Amino acid sequence: MTRSRRLEGLFAPVLTPFRDDLSPDAGRFAGHCRRLLDDGCNGLVLFGTTGEANSLAADERIALLEAVVAAGIDPARLLVGTGLCALPETVRLTAHATGLGCAGVLMLPPFFYKGMSDDGLYRAYAEVIERVGDDRLRVYLYHIPKVSGVAVTFGLIERLVASYEAAVVGIKDSSGDWDNTRGLLERFPEFTVFPGNEMDMLEALRRGAAGCITATANINAAGLRRLYDNWRTADAEALQDAASSVRRAAQTQPMIPGLKEVVARVSGDAGWLNVRPPFVGLSEAQSGELFASLEEAGFIHFRAAA
Amino acid sequence: MTRSRRLEGLFAPVLTPFRDDLSPDAGRFAGHCRRLLDDGCNGLVLFGTTGEANSLAADERIALLEAVVAAGIDPARLLVGTGLCALPETVRLTAHATGLGCAGVLMLPPFFYKGMSDDGLYRAYAEVIERVGDDRLRVYLYHIPKVSGVAVTFGLIERLVASYEAAVVGIKDSSGDWDNTRGLLERFPEFTVFPGNEMDMLEALRRGAAGCITATANINAAGLRRLYDNWRTADAEALQDAASSVRRAAQTQPMIPGLKEVVARVSGDAGWLNVRPPFVGLSEAQSGELFASLEEAGFIHFRAAA
Repeated sequence: MTRSRRLEGLFAPVLTPFRDDLSPDAGRFAGHCRRLLDDGCNGLVLFGTTGEANSLAADERIALLEAVVAAGIDPARLLVGTGLCALPETVRLTAHATGLGCAGVLMLPPFFYKGMSDDGLYRAYAEVIERVGDDRLRVYLYHIPKVSGVAVTFGLIERLVASYEAAVVGIKDSSGDWDNTRGLLERFPEFTVFPGNEMDMLEALRRGAAGCITATANINAAGLRRLYDNWRTADAEALQDAASSVRRAAQTQPMIPGLKEVVARVSGDAGWLNVRPPFVGLSEAQSGELFASLEEAGFIHFRAAA
Repeated sequence: MTRSRRLEGLFAPVLTPFRDDLSPDAGRFAGHCRRLLDDGCNGLVLFGTTGEANSLAADERIALLEAVVAAGIDPARLLVGTGLCALPETVRLTAHATGLGCAGVLMLPPFFYKGMSDDGLYRAYAEVIERVGDDRLRVYLYHIPKVSGVAVTFGLIERLVASYEAAVVGIKDSSGDWDNTRGLLERFPEFTVFPGNEMDMLEALRRGAAGCITATANINAAGLRRLYDNWRTADAEALQDAASSVRRAAQTQPMIPGLKEVVARVSGDAGWLNVRPPFVGLSEAQSGELFASLEEAGFIHFRAAA
């Protein structure tokens, strides 16, 4: 087997819109996907942490993915989150996304039980890969230990790559720990490494990162794409500083409801405000503080639309 | 609405057996349920942490529960784990178990996202209760923060009971933190509190606990039931000591694969050894150490059968 072409660039982990009854809104979702690509994203992650994916039923993920592909979004630009706690559901979602021609899947380890051994986590990934049994499968491991509570260690990656080199091709590192990202880039130079936020994007690109997958691409795709396209130029540091400022501003309030506030404001569509539990929407005060922080950070996209 | 009769006694969170292909084995499951009731359990928890529930697909839980009820196990003796990360799936499982006449559901909070507010967790539980909309629903909250990463706080309980007094009736406290269990018993005297292990069972019963839900009931139901039945007698301390010794011995190895080793040995059915990832079975050395520890703890059930 040969490796498929390496994925590269700016990826947005797409926010998932809900109707007032909290059902997923496939039309708004596909529209947002289209806008993000138009605004500069090289690709999209459907059903990541930012997308409230674990608040979605497996059937809901399948219906949303099919709606996005039916709406004309190229599946070759999609990474699809498929890692659940239950083996059969992870297999089902992974086979579905792979069968649709998606570029790859972003796979959490099973995340209910904590303190599991690398043996157990290896077994979890291996069972999925074997059961899906599709040469097109490309797995990007999802390391987000502060949320999932389960780390994807270097030792686990080594074992997976040794067994499934053609299938296990990359990782999203959402540790927020630069030492971990740098370590991945050094130890796995053939691996496709996406830092999970843009705070160290420039430094990561200089060391061989494939790009960046970051929540704020939902609101700042153009700025982040400029940084990605110009990281070798003299403008790079200034573009990194601008992107980091927006990120810091976005982080002043709970991130997912906050990003939805911004998308609602920019699009003029208040339907974007809905979040599934365990999230709650921002209070009016929180919302005001968020927009003030973004203004102060010089967030052009918002200012132009407001 | 009136409260239904309070659940009481010794409950086993039932181990889930898997065939060699890792599919759930409904026949072995129902047989184990029957044996546990015969051995002294007052009731059973299906699909708890010990039951590898979060490694099961929702459809698998539904099929297993229906098989157990079809096999003649009284649903009035069943508490059913139904708390998933995704609202629609939690609603579906909760409505199903309630519709079958089960005594109650044991409901984890949505557990992927960490650091959620009590507002958000209240909203999660409230949405499920409202959507199920069944007067028969009895919710037992599931507090197991070391595994789930999401605590059920006293403040959350207060708010839920204030809104849904008839539905939210109890809690399994698997914090392993005696101060938390004692605090629950003091602050919520009307609540049905089940400590999640037997180490402080006697003390908890003296302070008004409803009983105990403990993993080791899968192997030591008779001993634990004796303690429960005799907690007011002069034998209580000795029975507590004996139960605690078995618990400590069982904890010397990873608990879930370890308990399956014991059930396999006692029943002479090696099929019980299968675990789903992210677990792995015990090594021969671990298994030997476990049985030696149990022998040393005077674990009669095992010694009689070995």
